[in-house]
Amino acid sequence: MRNVICGRCVKCGREYEAVPDLTNCACGGILDIVYDYDYIRSVLTKEKLAKRTNRTMWRYRELLPVEETTPDTPLRVGWSPLYEEPRLAEKLGLKRLWVKDDGQNPTASLKDRASAMAVAKAQEAGARTIACSSTGNAASSLAGNAAAAGLKTYIFVPDRAPKGKVAQLMMFGANVISVKGNYEETFKMSAQAIEKYGWYNRNAAINPYLSEGKKTVALEIAEQLNWEMPDYLAISVGDGCTIAGVWKGLKDLYAIGFIDRLPRLISAQSTGCYPINRAIQTGQDWEPMAENTIADSISVGVPRNADKALAAIRESNGLAICVTDEEIMAAAQLLGRTCGVFGEPAGVTGTAAVKRAAELGLIGREDTVVSVVTGNGLKDVANAIKAAGEPLHIEPDLIKMVSGFAERGVKVM
Amino acid sequence: MRNVICGRCVKCGREYEAVPDLTNCACGGILDIVYDYDYIRSVLTKEKLAKRTNRTMWRYRELLPVEETTPDTPLRVGWSPLYEEPRLAEKLGLKRLWVKDDGQNPTASLKDRASAMAVAKAQEAGARTIACSSTGNAASSLAGNAAAAGLKTYIFVPDRAPKGKVAQLMMFGANVISVKGNYEETFKMSAQAIEKYGWYNRNAAINPYLSEGKKTVALEIAEQLNWEMPDYLAISVGDGCTIAGVWKGLKDLYAIGFIDRLPRLISAQSTGCYPINRAIQTGQDWEPMAENTIADSISVGVPRNADKALAAIRESNGLAICVTDEEIMAAAQLLGRTCGVFGEPAGVTGTAAVKRAAELGLIGREDTVVSVVTGNGLKDVANAIKAAGEPLHIEPDLIKMVSGFAERGVKVM
Repeated sequence: MRNVICGRCVKCGREYEAVPDLTNCACGGILDIVYDYDYIRSVLTKEKLAKRTNRTMWRYRELLPVEETTPDTPLRVGWSPLYEEPRLAEKLGLKRLWVKDDGQNPTASLKDRASAMAVAKAQEAGARTIACSSTGNAASSLAGNAAAAGLKTYIFVPDRAPKGKVAQLMMFGANVISVKGNYEETFKMSAQAIEKYGWYNRNAAINPYLSEGKKTVALEIAEQLNWEMPDYLAISVGDGCTIAGVWKGLKDLYAIGFIDRLPRLISAQSTGCYPINRAIQTGQDWEPMAENTIADSISVGVPRNADKALAAIRESNGLAICVTDEEIMAAAQLLGRTCGVFGEPAGVTGTAAVKRAAELGLIGREDTVVSVVTGNGLKDVANAIKAAGEPLHIEPDLIKMVSGFAERGVKVM
Repeated sequence: MRNVICGRCVKCGREYEAVPDLTNCACGGILDIVYDYDYIRSVLTKEKLAKRTNRTMWRYRELLPVEETTPDTPLRVGWSPLYEEPRLAEKLGLKRLWVKDDGQNPTASLKDRASAMAVAKAQEAGARTIACSSTGNAASSLAGNAAAAGLKTYIFVPDRAPKGKVAQLMMFGANVISVKGNYEETFKMSAQAIEKYGWYNRNAAINPYLSEGKKTVALEIAEQLNWEMPDYLAISVGDGCTIAGVWKGLKDLYAIGFIDRLPRLISAQSTGCYPINRAIQTGQDWEPMAENTIADSISVGVPRNADKALAAIRESNGLAICVTDEEIMAAAQLLGRTCGVFGEPAGVTGTAAVKRAAELGLIGREDTVVSVVTGNGLKDVANAIKAAGEPLHIEPDLIKMVSGFAERGVKVM
């Protein structure tokens, strides 16, 4: 890879050759992929990019850690829509607001970006099987992207994973292990199995390439905004890999001169599980927490990528905002009704945090904000129905319809 | 509209001015939108199209029945991926096979194309409320596209509509009437309410513009194949509006000289409900049938657009292929495992029909086929789980994992 210098430990600084099956440092620290920005500047310009017809994450090849000969992965991952939402901005009291709907990915979550990267790197490594543990979306995205590429998968999920995600896994033909335990136990079991069987490792907190896939969401936001950065970028945080990836993408663009300022990150977690935000709020290191939120994708009590996530939030002078499950589901309804965007609970937690931050006066009329919706609401229909209620169930009779709606306070007209 | 001449009844030939709230002919027949192909040829070339960066259905404006001043609708509808699937082609014994994944639309089905058109036309008509009846997808797509545009909706669904679709409706803030009855009763109730309250009508069998939205799937397929048509195009059929729209799009392209031959249509229905295919097979007119298939979106015993659909299938010298529910779910698994594409039952019925047609020797090694997947599998998780099975539920223990998979005939390696 001409564009990559090495993998460097975020803890001890030790450097490693960027081989395809790179994992953590000997010290236990997570690696960061270090690029040759001078080289990238010499081969990539905004004008060159603008001419590309490739509307997937692979349009940013010069900024990605893959060999030039590695093919694009089969599914259409990335280039999800970025919608400007003036009516929602008005409701929240913001200057401008954009929603990046990353539920519009092949398996309906942002995690497709990391899984596509995993498939590309597994192919470089000559692997035929990929494995991961996941609360759901990393799993289903790996299963789908691997199936399309003809690779086998072993996937470990905690048994609380929502049915929609499990259905995807099974349909994609993954070998699925539903672990009777929490995410931490699930993660450990996957690590044991991966070591024993030599599968390619798609655990984002161990494989340093995966954040590089996730960062493409930030690259796209920047290009879609014509390289003019918002004041804030809000995203939900679980393991920490996604917010770390977002920050990496932004720093890459800054390093090669495509953007001239960096947004502040808004780290959104649930009040039912917020080890990363607690560390930011107290200025201390993170400590494990119980996992107690309906936002399953970010219900992570032992975040596997806390180092990178905390560094990203602190470097960006970011905000750590916690929201209740009720606020999360209210944000889901707000996005659905105002924007036509249907997000899963963890997917809309960033937007819930934007609303909370606006209510607290931390952001306001002078501020521009991008909120990333990280997963599609169809992944977790049970919680959606619980929040949004049931339809009017009636016989085919207009009079019953009118009185039924009247009971709900709706005047039919 | 410079490009549109009129609406013409497919039954009696009577012509109507193409006003925004056009409905059926006085004789009860459905209208067809008639274009001025000479004009379109004078303003649209393949080269002009190729240069457009707009990757939504609105890139085909010259071929769509909207005023030049009508804005694009807010959600990113259309330009779904067309995947070539050599491994699936090999399995089915076909020369080449492409899968168009139209579940990759904002509300996860092809119906977004019609609903976006409805929103555009409702805005032209100055309407503030849109209504429809639907087995699910037309409903959820209307709810989402209307919400994004700031319009109100009243939506009538039969009470068997899957939970995923109902969850979408409620989240998008629609006024939803779940009718205790079949699709036919639901449709009639919506017609009564629309007449009484003067809402804009998004029933595809009444509003002739909606097929024009749906046809964009065919325009895209043609452009994505660089205007070289396959031998066959397979799609599932319920009301008949979608296959009619597909055929209209193909004929439009043929009329303006963008393609030089037309594919044969494969009309895919379930053996549990196939009034359209029965009419083709017997050469008679269609008759109502019971609704008895898990493929809810095409479980339509009284197809509302049979005239256009039958004409399309016959004109194309098409095949009418029926498949069982078991074949439908087997096709869902085949697409998931081989292509990484997860479709709902009705969504994969076209692919099931392609498989059946290949087994019957109706198509084979010499043939090229496009199969359209019309909706995302996340819409109907219950049937997916039923078909694909449950994961291995175990304690975090590698030995239990190995023996658990062994019981399923999988050797862990």
